[in-house]
Amino acid sequence: MSKIYVVGIGPGAYEQMTIKAARALEECQTIVGYTVYVDLVKEHFPGKEFLTTPMRREVERCRMAFAEAAKGKTVAMVCSGDAGVYGMSGLMLTVGKDYPQISVEMIPGVTAAIGGAAVLGAPLIHDFALISLSDLLTPWEKIEKRLACAAQADFVICLYNPSSKKRKDYLQRACDILLQYQPGELVCGTVGQIGREGEAMQLYTLSELREASVDMFTTVFIGNSQTKIIDGRMVTPRGYRLSEEETL
Amino acid sequence: MSKIYVVGIGPGAYEQMTIKAARALEECQTIVGYTVYVDLVKEHFPGKEFLTTPMRREVERCRMAFAEAAKGKTVAMVCSGDAGVYGMSGLMLTVGKDYPQISVEMIPGVTAAIGGAAVLGAPLIHDFALISLSDLLTPWEKIEKRLACAAQADFVICLYNPSSKKRKDYLQRACDILLQYQPGELVCGTVGQIGREGEAMQLYTLSELREASVDMFTTVFIGNSQTKIIDGRMVTPRGYRLSEEETL
Repeated sequence: MSKIYVVGIGPGAYEQMTIKAARALEECQTIVGYTVYVDLVKEHFPGKEFLTTPMRREVERCRMAFAEAAKGKTVAMVCSGDAGVYGMSGLMLTVGKDYPQISVEMIPGVTAAIGGAAVLGAPLIHDFALISLSDLLTPWEKIEKRLACAAQADFVICLYNPSSKKRKDYLQRACDILLQYQPGELVCGTVGQIGREGEAMQLYTLSELREASVDMFTTVFIGNSQTKIIDGRMVTPRGYRLSEEETL
Repeated sequence: MSKIYVVGIGPGAYEQMTIKAARALEECQTIVGYTVYVDLVKEHFPGKEFLTTPMRREVERCRMAFAEAAKGKTVAMVCSGDAGVYGMSGLMLTVGKDYPQISVEMIPGVTAAIGGAAVLGAPLIHDFALISLSDLLTPWEKIEKRLACAAQADFVICLYNPSSKKRKDYLQRACDILLQYQPGELVCGTVGQIGREGEAMQLYTLSELREASVDMFTTVFIGNSQTKIIDGRMVTPRGYRLSEEETL
């Protein structure tokens, strides 16, 4: 039976992927993916066949992977971060209905929320909500509702796709919703280019974040009411009691 | 300057950790952690010094790591999954205030939500909320509020710590809250022993999940209104348009 691995390569390149992911890429003959992600792994897996499609050609990319596997090859579909978080896992399983003779195995990876949190400190230590601000595939009203509900429940919030050329003011619009429920002093942070050259973190208050300019390679973290800054790092306490006065 | 790595080893053992995590464990002299997690890595890193503390001795465990690093050793604090998600990162940075001469670096890992999702299929493809049902360190009222808000906003929900000896009915109580906002037919799933021997997944409706018995090694996934079952796997669509009729 032919096999496709759907592999999350982590936020950066080689050393941020799991050992299991690296073994799957070693084992396969063909690596399929979005051009940018294939370029990230190319040098580490010489001798493989590489097939790419540009952005917004996701269905075609999946069919390409299955077509190669149908020829008897072992194929890997690579995604940045984790393939199961705004990635290709779901689409692969859906397209896979047409190829019952090909088995699909997901290999998890470090998504940007997890990778970015490690750069900032420990913002996601407690309950959190992950929300994409891209309204390309989701109605904006649904995104607004999720922002409002997450803020009301005092979740830490991690935002993916906070900006793009066509959506320059989306982070500002999101902050305006959050500011209806949370104070302007709330601790926030951003990480750009996680695990890649140019990785950079920045701390903000929620009011400052509203005025910040971020790009599409940035992941945004909004603290909960307990989140604080410790030695320049963003830390959400879990609730451990150190003494009557101090909760960690 | 002495160094401590706070390392997420992923859901299972060796091959689910990142290459960077494995390199950090190779580099260090001393590995500190909760007994169960240290046992998971022990055989792969012979010749290291291993120090453990039992559950609920987390502050002591952190101080132990800093005390070893203060002797000039490179130390790794290991956590299962990711150290930044209900893990030791936050506590390490807090305790670290007393040790300014020791640098702390987080090395991210695959948390149970990500690892479990890969076993079930692709339940977390869209916006999701992560909630722990443990009220050991969080008031139950806060947990209830987060469940209610997440369900109202139609987030996919991933539950950590769904049960324990003292909290046998917590998953049932959580389902009762979710059922106020979501239909009983909602697609749900559980994964036990992710990435370890005995790994097992199970699909449910939300009504069935209410009656299910799960243990503390189980991670629970509650779909959003779009989540479906495709060839026995739990899949949340991202919103790609295949045709007028079909959304993937």
